[in-house]
Amino acid sequence: MTIKPLMVLLSTVALLPAQPNLMPWPAKIALMPGRLPIDQSFRVGFSGYQDQRLRAAEYRFIAHLSMQTGIPIPHSSTGDSAQATLEIQCEHAGEPVQKLGEDESYRLDVSEKHARLSAPGPLGILRGLETFLQLVEPGAQNFAALAVSIEDKPRFPWRGLHLDVSRHWMPVAVVKRNIAGMAAVKLNVFHWHLSDDQGFRVESKRYPKLQQMGSDGQYYTQEEVRDVVAFARERGIRVVPEFDIPGHSSSWIVAYPELASAAGDYEIERKWGVFDPTMDPTREYTYEFLDNFIGEMAELFPDRFFHIGGDEVNGKQWKSERHILDFMREHKLKDNQELHAYFNKRIQAIVTKHGKRMEGWDEILNPDLPKDIVIQSWRGQKSLAEAARLGYSGLLSSGYYLDHIEPAAVLYMVDPLEKESASLTAEEKARVLGGEVCMWAEYVTAENVDSRIWPRTAAIAERLWSPSEVRDIASMYRRLEVVSQNLDYLGLTHHSSYRTMLERFSAGEPVEPLKVLADVLYPGNLGQRTRTHKYTQQTPLNRLVDAVRPESRTAREFAALVDRMDKPQIRAWLTLWRDNDAKLKPIFGKSFLLTEDVQVSKDLSQVATIGLEALDYIDHGKRPPAAWLAQQKVFLENARKIRQELFIAIVPSIQKLVAGL
Amino acid sequence: MTIKPLMVLLSTVALLPAQPNLMPWPAKIALMPGRLPIDQSFRVGFSGYQDQRLRAAEYRFIAHLSMQTGIPIPHSSTGDSAQATLEIQCEHAGEPVQKLGEDESYRLDVSEKHARLSAPGPLGILRGLETFLQLVEPGAQNFAALAVSIEDKPRFPWRGLHLDVSRHWMPVAVVKRNIAGMAAVKLNVFHWHLSDDQGFRVESKRYPKLQQMGSDGQYYTQEEVRDVVAFARERGIRVVPEFDIPGHSSSWIVAYPELASAAGDYEIERKWGVFDPTMDPTREYTYEFLDNFIGEMAELFPDRFFHIGGDEVNGKQWKSERHILDFMREHKLKDNQELHAYFNKRIQAIVTKHGKRMEGWDEILNPDLPKDIVIQSWRGQKSLAEAARLGYSGLLSSGYYLDHIEPAAVLYMVDPLEKESASLTAEEKARVLGGEVCMWAEYVTAENVDSRIWPRTAAIAERLWSPSEVRDIASMYRRLEVVSQNLDYLGLTHHSSYRTMLERFSAGEPVEPLKVLADVLYPGNLGQRTRTHKYTQQTPLNRLVDAVRPESRTAREFAALVDRMDKPQIRAWLTLWRDNDAKLKPIFGKSFLLTEDVQVSKDLSQVATIGLEALDYIDHGKRPPAAWLAQQKVFLENARKIRQELFIAIVPSIQKLVAGL
Repeated sequence: MTIKPLMVLLSTVALLPAQPNLMPWPAKIALMPGRLPIDQSFRVGFSGYQDQRLRAAEYRFIAHLSMQTGIPIPHSSTGDSAQATLEIQCEHAGEPVQKLGEDESYRLDVSEKHARLSAPGPLGILRGLETFLQLVEPGAQNFAALAVSIEDKPRFPWRGLHLDVSRHWMPVAVVKRNIAGMAAVKLNVFHWHLSDDQGFRVESKRYPKLQQMGSDGQYYTQEEVRDVVAFARERGIRVVPEFDIPGHSSSWIVAYPELASAAGDYEIERKWGVFDPTMDPTREYTYEFLDNFIGEMAELFPDRFFHIGGDEVNGKQWKSERHILDFMREHKLKDNQELHAYFNKRIQAIVTKHGKRMEGWDEILNPDLPKDIVIQSWRGQKSLAEAARLGYSGLLSSGYYLDHIEPAAVLYMVDPLEKESASLTAEEKARVLGGEVCMWAEYVTAENVDSRIWPRTAAIAERLWSPSEVRDIASMYRRLEVVSQNLDYLGLTHHSSYRTMLERFSAGEPVEPLKVLADVLYPGNLGQRTRTHKYTQQTPLNRLVDAVRPESRTAREFAALVDRMDKPQIRAWLTLWRDNDAKLKPIFGKSFLLTEDVQVSKDLSQVATIGLEALDYIDHGKRPPAAWLAQQKVFLENARKIRQELFIAIVPSIQKLVAGL
Repeated sequence: MTIKPLMVLLSTVALLPAQPNLMPWPAKIALMPGRLPIDQSFRVGFSGYQDQRLRAAEYRFIAHLSMQTGIPIPHSSTGDSAQATLEIQCEHAGEPVQKLGEDESYRLDVSEKHARLSAPGPLGILRGLETFLQLVEPGAQNFAALAVSIEDKPRFPWRGLHLDVSRHWMPVAVVKRNIAGMAAVKLNVFHWHLSDDQGFRVESKRYPKLQQMGSDGQYYTQEEVRDVVAFARERGIRVVPEFDIPGHSSSWIVAYPELASAAGDYEIERKWGVFDPTMDPTREYTYEFLDNFIGEMAELFPDRFFHIGGDEVNGKQWKSERHILDFMREHKLKDNQELHAYFNKRIQAIVTKHGKRMEGWDEILNPDLPKDIVIQSWRGQKSLAEAARLGYSGLLSSGYYLDHIEPAAVLYMVDPLEKESASLTAEEKARVLGGEVCMWAEYVTAENVDSRIWPRTAAIAERLWSPSEVRDIASMYRRLEVVSQNLDYLGLTHHSSYRTMLERFSAGEPVEPLKVLADVLYPGNLGQRTRTHKYTQQTPLNRLVDAVRPESRTAREFAALVDRMDKPQIRAWLTLWRDNDAKLKPIFGKSFLLTEDVQVSKDLSQVATIGLEALDYIDHGKRPPAAWLAQQKVFLENARKIRQELFIAIVPSIQKLVAGL
């Protein structure tokens, strides 16, 4: 018995004992009455194909189940699947190197007595184990997994997280815990952005100056890379490396200036933006170098795909160097775009020679290139559709940029197959492989990066895995909170670093009033922060804007209170915010890091005061004087704007209150 | 210029720019005007003796300084100490194996321009670096280290933390992060309680059944032990292993029943208490076994001391076995105590043969043993004084038992040289080497153990390091909060696990109301919990009693509000607590783990209501009716008692309010 997704969730609530907090929501799910109790007698039994990866997955599964429940469950999987609480039946081995499109489907049946997880291959088992963990909740009697019958498989075969480790360095521990988080929400591609103007992050044995001169000593050894790749494979995640060429290559050129289009004194770039240093596409040295380098990396990274970047070539060096202009004339290349296409064709041949399929950003799209390349679109569904019509495969990243600081609700509704790509034929649509969440690292460090990635990435993971009809925002938020808590057990610091960052300001004073303020703020986005011209790679990211979360749960819940006019609760919150500024005085006096935020706190207090006055008018059934109304509207419109790179997230709700007067 | 400890702190506050949050407080400190700014240009320079350990310490120091400030400080220590912000001058190398009493003194001078840390040996440098980190605070302009002149050295040479890893298993990561925490507060001995009735936790190659049959698979490999010992040495911490014999040895006897005094079917003990299985002190096999075993462990653990436990031998097996009674008669041993002393003498010879000094709990004290043994007193200053008078060295652990759930204020005032040991001669006092905090593991797991150890252990660390006159409780608590926050950067989970444990109950509901309740609760102690007869080694420790902290900061601060009768604040808190029960309804409905706490929450609400009524009487200057008063007093007296293994920490303050009516 199977039921269309969400039908159960939306229509038969009354019949069912509880709603599972699954994310991503499965392709097909039927909820059953009852629960399977989880206690110390829990055992896993394998009844089909087995290998080291499956056993490791079972080990992690039991460890996670123990952490999640606080019940010490011994590791003793039983060969006798009849005695097992959870029987795992895998049909056959997986690919030696995980393939794009490798089967991830599984079937999970949980009854009050027994659970059975079956899948054609190991990837399905990995996915199903994550689903099982999400079914486990404390109930009225015990911990239990909700009884369900699930048939599940992904909508898109490529569901990635792109992490920039060049602009700010991300140690191996950060990478690993985020890969663990990806696995928990069934993402399957870790896109590792390993070089850019601000740093070259992998050890090359062939060209060691790359890491010696281009990384400030912050790079992954080849040993570490192999370790990360193995860690990801254990979790059913491919690792696609990106080496961005021919632009975004200052850090290479510092080490090997002979790669540059123009002579010069090059330095690792410390600022953000698009810079002039560009590889020379006219010299054979460049291609020899890249042939050797890509050959070395092709061995280190076993995945079939190899990302060459290719974005944002400003072309200034190409336009100003005589030998390049001569070359273009000679080869009948009429502009920089054609020169870039020439370069890409040469690179594509090298990548192919080393057994890989080339991937790049929108800019590499050119009908001269063979059809096996993959286009990653940061520009939008339009480029994606254009590529698909030309016969190219593509991925959507536009709309999934975490540094744009959109709330989960917005990210969640972005679909690779909407807008221009909605009108593609079925054959063309099949070329849209999925999407990738992008975490660029201008404004994140190892300390706060998790809080930018999680939990919002889980919502996008659902978009890429679940049927397109799954789009109930309230349901998404409800489940997102539970998933977010569960991610703590993987070592992710999206919750814990919030506290430590706030405590850095408070210097021993109670942190609560600061948390009250921070809970209703959110940071400016990439563009807004960059326009302050304050930042270089070395600027400490230790201010309130770096600590506050990209989305205010408090403000979202307050907005719901305003929508249903829950006056006592609204009043309680507004009173808290009005009085909070006074409580912050001792902390503001202590720390220079907060000096800039004194006015933000005062403004929050004033916004809350206006809200309370508005409530009083409502309570007394009186209309406020026009002058009062006009004055408050101006104040609120201003309060809605960015200040100290921060937004006060409750202002729209107060504007709504005042507008209703 | 140096000043007596605390004199500055207490007498010249007005003259000084700020009070440093140092813990332990230094032996001598003079505060200077000004601060040394901390920014990206911070550099360390070595001007004296250098070795790998000092360089590793400098590396950790810079990493910690970066975390603490959020400022990315590059690692580039300079050979030229004139250019350094912090100059380190160490005179000579340390001992190859850290010795008891090895010099830990240092001198630290910080001015507005420069800091200089000098010490005779590496241990002093390690201690001084921790002091420097504690001097760094956010100020009005920047992060800065307060200008000071410090001459520091410990009061006692043995300052330990004892961790039981037998009753509940503690993985290597738990051990390491706690050793890192120890170093931060200048403790210098990690006492590793490696065997007990409930588990044998070290790999023996000579007797592999010990870990194979005695550990449930939860033990440290020898490789891991060496890694932990090296980790501790890097931080100036000795590692003293304890293998508890001849009692507390069920887990050995499971593996090697021939060690037992009596034949029987032995199993790993799952309950708490004192049990019958005891090694046979009459058979040569026992001594041969222990000779081999201690020989193996003596190589694995380089420290000069070897702890043989020796506590709580109940002697039942000795009294009931004919061959033992025969042996006692033959050897003229009149009782179990003399038999135990015989055993200890034999063991002492073995321990000595392997190059070690024997250490044990109070019970091993016997005038026949040589004077080089060390007595660790769990019974009190009396045994300590007795040992010292007899010429034995000793350590205090009585009063430092974390599972007795005393607040930091109580632990802090316990002194090894008070009570019976206060009257010792100077020579005898010198035999009191210090003390050890004891973390027994009946009611802790890897998840919550940090929250039992920290921050309270920091207060004891101050008692053992700082001059005995340092005993201002208010100052201790103020500094303790800052130290506690700083420990987060070492990976300790005393803060973060509180949140994850509370979220386990809340299952997606906002955790705040649960936190409001949990913030004013504290758990029952070892005895109170054991008397419930609920617990075995396998009982999950996932209930509210396991999540709440041993000491309520909120209740402590509320008590201060009541003391100074800050009525608006008292009312605000009481209102929060009164109304909190209603907010908990949705959570209570969800999770069986909290069912038992429904009444506790109601009681808190009622306690707060009584407080509010009392406040009303005070506000109106009225005396309450006698009946009301009598009734509330009864209720409060009851509310003060333990319920569901929990205490409501604010009840005494409400009683005070009511008593004042």
